[in-house]
Amino acid sequence: MGKKIVIVGAVAAGPKAACRLKRLDPDCEITMVDQDSLISYGGCGIPYYVSGDVSDASELRATSFHVVRDENFFKNAKGVNVLTSTRAMSIDRERKVLRVQHMESGEQQELPYDKLMLATGASPFALPIPGTDLDGVFTIANLHKAIEIRKRISQGQVSRAVVIGGGAIGIEMAEALKDLWGVETSLIELAPHLLPGIVDWHFAEMLKVHLQESGVDVYTGESATEIIGDSEGNVTAVTTGARTLDADLVIIAVGVRPRSELAREAGLSVAPWGGIRVNRRLQTSDPDIYAAGDCIASVSSITGKETYAPLGSLANREGRVVADNIAGLPSTFGGVCGSFIMKAFERCISCTGISYKTAIAEGYDAEYALTSPPDRAHFFPNQSVVIFQLVFDRRTRKVLGAQGFGMMNDSLSARIDTAAALIGKGGTIDDFIGVEMAYAPPFSAAIDTINAAGFVAENLCENRLRQVQLERFLHWMTDMEIEPDWVALDIRHPMEAKPYVERYGKDKWVAVQYEQMREKYSEIPEGKTCIILCNAGTRSYEVQIFLDHLGKTDSMVLGGGLNVISRLGVDWYIK
Amino acid sequence: MGKKIVIVGAVAAGPKAACRLKRLDPDCEITMVDQDSLISYGGCGIPYYVSGDVSDASELRATSFHVVRDENFFKNAKGVNVLTSTRAMSIDRERKVLRVQHMESGEQQELPYDKLMLATGASPFALPIPGTDLDGVFTIANLHKAIEIRKRISQGQVSRAVVIGGGAIGIEMAEALKDLWGVETSLIELAPHLLPGIVDWHFAEMLKVHLQESGVDVYTGESATEIIGDSEGNVTAVTTGARTLDADLVIIAVGVRPRSELAREAGLSVAPWGGIRVNRRLQTSDPDIYAAGDCIASVSSITGKETYAPLGSLANREGRVVADNIAGLPSTFGGVCGSFIMKAFERCISCTGISYKTAIAEGYDAEYALTSPPDRAHFFPNQSVVIFQLVFDRRTRKVLGAQGFGMMNDSLSARIDTAAALIGKGGTIDDFIGVEMAYAPPFSAAIDTINAAGFVAENLCENRLRQVQLERFLHWMTDMEIEPDWVALDIRHPMEAKPYVERYGKDKWVAVQYEQMREKYSEIPEGKTCIILCNAGTRSYEVQIFLDHLGKTDSMVLGGGLNVISRLGVDWYIK
Repeated sequence: MGKKIVIVGAVAAGPKAACRLKRLDPDCEITMVDQDSLISYGGCGIPYYVSGDVSDASELRATSFHVVRDENFFKNAKGVNVLTSTRAMSIDRERKVLRVQHMESGEQQELPYDKLMLATGASPFALPIPGTDLDGVFTIANLHKAIEIRKRISQGQVSRAVVIGGGAIGIEMAEALKDLWGVETSLIELAPHLLPGIVDWHFAEMLKVHLQESGVDVYTGESATEIIGDSEGNVTAVTTGARTLDADLVIIAVGVRPRSELAREAGLSVAPWGGIRVNRRLQTSDPDIYAAGDCIASVSSITGKETYAPLGSLANREGRVVADNIAGLPSTFGGVCGSFIMKAFERCISCTGISYKTAIAEGYDAEYALTSPPDRAHFFPNQSVVIFQLVFDRRTRKVLGAQGFGMMNDSLSARIDTAAALIGKGGTIDDFIGVEMAYAPPFSAAIDTINAAGFVAENLCENRLRQVQLERFLHWMTDMEIEPDWVALDIRHPMEAKPYVERYGKDKWVAVQYEQMREKYSEIPEGKTCIILCNAGTRSYEVQIFLDHLGKTDSMVLGGGLNVISRLGVDWYIK
Repeated sequence: MGKKIVIVGAVAAGPKAACRLKRLDPDCEITMVDQDSLISYGGCGIPYYVSGDVSDASELRATSFHVVRDENFFKNAKGVNVLTSTRAMSIDRERKVLRVQHMESGEQQELPYDKLMLATGASPFALPIPGTDLDGVFTIANLHKAIEIRKRISQGQVSRAVVIGGGAIGIEMAEALKDLWGVETSLIELAPHLLPGIVDWHFAEMLKVHLQESGVDVYTGESATEIIGDSEGNVTAVTTGARTLDADLVIIAVGVRPRSELAREAGLSVAPWGGIRVNRRLQTSDPDIYAAGDCIASVSSITGKETYAPLGSLANREGRVVADNIAGLPSTFGGVCGSFIMKAFERCISCTGISYKTAIAEGYDAEYALTSPPDRAHFFPNQSVVIFQLVFDRRTRKVLGAQGFGMMNDSLSARIDTAAALIGKGGTIDDFIGVEMAYAPPFSAAIDTINAAGFVAENLCENRLRQVQLERFLHWMTDMEIEPDWVALDIRHPMEAKPYVERYGKDKWVAVQYEQMREKYSEIPEGKTCIILCNAGTRSYEVQIFLDHLGKTDSMVLGGGLNVISRLGVDWYIK
């Protein structure tokens, strides 16, 4: 007789652990229970199913060899028993028994275990406003909801949608509705910018500008106060403090929280915010009970603090670690970097580690190196600018995070994944300078994005480069009185500088071309703080050094240059 | 008065060092000499200029802000003096003087230096066969040659071309000729496979199959014995031991070697094969003379041995290190991984670290994990299979190298760059298992390629997975007598297995579907060694474990599965 293993939850971490464990120890008797009837699906694919990119919901439930992962599949191919539509009610840790209820019959059953695994996942936050129960209001809690949403859209029942929540799922859903179905879509985010807690505001703003260019109306810093319906109980609109948006479909995607009631009621250690606490072997406070996936409290590899990282990729790796440990292999799960990537229409946004804002809040001596290089050799067709930022600690030279915004292709993956590899190993600026990226003109520049950002970080760290805070500069562009002694020194081609000189006046926006700086620097006004500007920031750095050498040391460089400014929709920003 | 710095060579490492040094120490007086009239160009872009992807040669010489990097640019924008068409003749180390000759006037001049930098680059290997001086025979030595080649093609003078040399430049040139100009193109490589010394034979063979599909005739294991011309001295054909190929254009790209005559004659330490020896600060055996770029001997980060890595990306980073050290900053250049990537028509091939063959030759207890996962979520549109291999040392679990072959996009960059980051930090299999790749369905699978390969490597290392050598299995497919006791156990869908069963017979190719294995395993013949086959290798591993558990332990898995076999052009291979 093999060990009895019971697993609660059969979406990602659970099935991964079950199958791996069955391979490591074929004698194990494994029973997996799930309250849903549909199991083992790619939840991250839901927006692509709603959009129609994925044509059939069964594809999200199928293996790469096109077999649907249902109970029979787990039984026949994997030798794992699955009880679907079965809810875990309580854990009797003394007797080592899980009590479950079969949801159709109402019948209860006790499942004895040697080892128990909790992979209970997450549930969507409820929005505490009136109207969330109206017909046409959805959360993206599971595949059933997605199937219903897609059915309504494809039947022409949806012409106007409001998405509440500017996190990844909200943005992906907004794209799905607008891009492929042409639904008039608005997106509301309570926080001052999209993807709060994930990227810094300027990356979020570049994304917002692109969403708006793509036809999604985005309202940040606004909260939905009520969802309004007609007399038949159908949704008709969403109101915020500032406006009322008509809607026949509302999607609420305001985040998720760990499903940990079962663990808490069994007396296991659970963080106040709901994450089940586990050690590096993913054991809970009861060594016979493991937990993995969206229900656990993770540890940040950067800060060492508790964090929440509900991602399918982590769930799979965690499931494997649980299986190893149950089978007696000494496997551990390290901290999480928080690697993140998302498609948004024609762009992609990605990050790993912590943001500048978080780094400051955590007390680091943080600084950011903001760059805007081409994503492949600048002479290669279809090259395009990528905005890339490293966040680092000046004191230790450790890189704390990286963020990028660029065209929708895989080139940003390469840089963020490499950054995650280095950050996960405690990498410093020197590691970013030294990492050997594969180079050929169709794929990268001879000086790769990641090396170049390392160079800038080093120059900042060594005080060879002094930069202006982007936010402050943007503020100045809208109200020059906040820094009356500043003057923009635009070193781009005169044709590029011209519209700015005309808009701001020659006193505030001085154009002296980079190539002519050594002969024309006397045109720079005396007694002013020069904010040096070019497209990417690299020429500006050279000019700063040149001016320093002349004794004109009161200058600052705009990191990332006008490439960043233009992606922030400067005209829109300035008004 | 600042330090006098003289730099020999003005293509990549030289200009990088000059500009960085001028920023670090603006008082420096820097003189850069180059025997060519064209300087500071992107040599790696030459094939894309020949193809027409890059429309004008000046683009290879321009900055990202579209200014041509000529002598005036360096003088005005950078404050660096450049002497073009000027050859470095000799170094007088006692007097610290470089003697140069102006090639047009023949006049000689002495340039005194405090520090000298050699960035003399590489020169193409000459081919010791008759006919290399015929009109129409080119090496890709510099931009002038590329301009002449493109001129001839665009004027319709070329209808048949032969490229001698199956390294990166030869393959890129073959693509340039065939793909965009429709020139009938043959490629000859002396070694048994393309990209010798870079990738393993099976990756090279997949590339070869694709080149042939794309219309390039590839002849490996054949050497050009003579280049034939007509009475007017124009090339007409190339002969090998096996055939004569008509040609009105011949490109010789049989590799490059360091240009180190100047260093050798000055008594500096030079490797027998020509690389100038440097320490980690890139000083030669004379501490006042630095060297960088294609002329130096590098050190492998994997083996610790001397290696040759003539790459523009390394040259740039090395140039920066030279500048730092001359300016008094304690900067070092570590070893090289040998990261490599190349576009070939619709595919891309990439690697880092050392190959399996090299690892065996170097005495490692080497093994390879060969996988064939989808390059993004398997349900996402446009996903495609990537062939990915880790090479590792069983004893230390260190990963020694990674190779990939997939569709032409950036997804392989992401995996190889990440692998390079980990290998450069001495990464083990566990680091590959644990690295946190950014996940979303449009970019990756929930279990990333690199994690999955780490899993396979671990399973191999722990002897949980036993695999058949790919080469041996292919041999068996053409001659089953070499292993009379082998039988292929094809666990794919019966429709997929059918053509193989029909070809090889039911005795040698047994089809039992994966999902039905637990009920039908009795159909597997007794007393035979089963080679278990599926598309990617993952199901095969499960079946191996299942059979082991039944006591049928005489089986081996085909790593990477039929995905690999089919890319090797199995029908063509079997004949």
